[in-house]
Amino acid sequence: MSNPSSLEHLVEALRCLPGVGPKSALRMAYHLLQRDRGGAGNLALALQGALEKIGHCAACNSFSEQPTCNLCATGNRDARLLCVVEMPTDLMMLEQTHSYHGMYFVLMGRLSPLDGIGPREIHLDRLLKRAQDGIVEEVILATNYTVEGEATAHYVSELLKSRGIKVSRIARGLPMGGEIEHVDSGTLAQALMERRAVK
Amino acid sequence: MSNPSSLEHLVEALRCLPGVGPKSALRMAYHLLQRDRGGAGNLALALQGALEKIGHCAACNSFSEQPTCNLCATGNRDARLLCVVEMPTDLMMLEQTHSYHGMYFVLMGRLSPLDGIGPREIHLDRLLKRAQDGIVEEVILATNYTVEGEATAHYVSELLKSRGIKVSRIARGLPMGGEIEHVDSGTLAQALMERRAVK
Repeated sequence: MSNPSSLEHLVEALRCLPGVGPKSALRMAYHLLQRDRGGAGNLALALQGALEKIGHCAACNSFSEQPTCNLCATGNRDARLLCVVEMPTDLMMLEQTHSYHGMYFVLMGRLSPLDGIGPREIHLDRLLKRAQDGIVEEVILATNYTVEGEATAHYVSELLKSRGIKVSRIARGLPMGGEIEHVDSGTLAQALMERRAVK
Repeated sequence: MSNPSSLEHLVEALRCLPGVGPKSALRMAYHLLQRDRGGAGNLALALQGALEKIGHCAACNSFSEQPTCNLCATGNRDARLLCVVEMPTDLMMLEQTHSYHGMYFVLMGRLSPLDGIGPREIHLDRLLKRAQDGIVEEVILATNYTVEGEATAHYVSELLKSRGIKVSRIARGLPMGGEIEHVDSGTLAQALMERRAVK
């Protein structure tokens, strides 16, 4: 006695989702077939629709349904500033601050040699071309302050600086409302090291 | 600046999966579009295939591509025994013991009034009909020993006993290889209470 083959196939297919192992794939398949067939049909259509429509913006490399995304297409951004982020979520977080008015380049990942993600996978050739378009004056690296994000920032900065491009990195330090008593020592050490003169 | 609408749609659709909230749905959508478009297309087809082909066995109520599943269709099982389980996984675990040769009835859930799962949702009307078919002599309740599984077993047993059907419950006690020193006190108390005479 085993599960019907189209169920086995569904369980196998669900495992392409990140963080979904055999047990949760089986739980998901049972749930969909038993309690949410409408949701399952909707998901199938949404997957197909997304695959069909979503590509990458030719300018910033973020997801877009048009050849150039809305943000890159508007003419009211400062094209002299190019902010490099790992993922579209990061771009959206930066936009929510309402304090940046330049352009973006989305790597769609971070350097991670163990996962087979090298310079080509994060589209550094395109970033390099973009940064050398004659308009960009400064590249702001806004990758995460994780080990991989740091390594990516380091690699990208070396690459750009060797071409004579001005590169900066978003600041690291205590968060807003951060208390010295509760902040981790690594952050505190960096905040000390990168202290700024009070004017 | 926001995500393209077909991406938003996909993120929303992914939330029909159990245990998937807005953040992991977004992570899944990014992963599929960025790193596994093949997997996403395959998942869409698997969902549609499963929805189209998979129904429930008319006899045991488990998932089946045929009107009657393989297990119920073979004539070599003991039709006098009917084992009631919560989910198809439980059925498969019991089959793997190679120690049961009767038939099954799969509730496809457990009583859980707070989630809106009552007697009708776990198909007790069909179970009752099946148990009174004139062939079944004993119904074995193999629901989980959880609060909900216990409540389900209690409810089902009352229902069946009131119709004069013989009902039994799988035993509870120390697991194989279980050491008294390490077993929880609830299990130990039950093992004491349900002790068997040594012959």
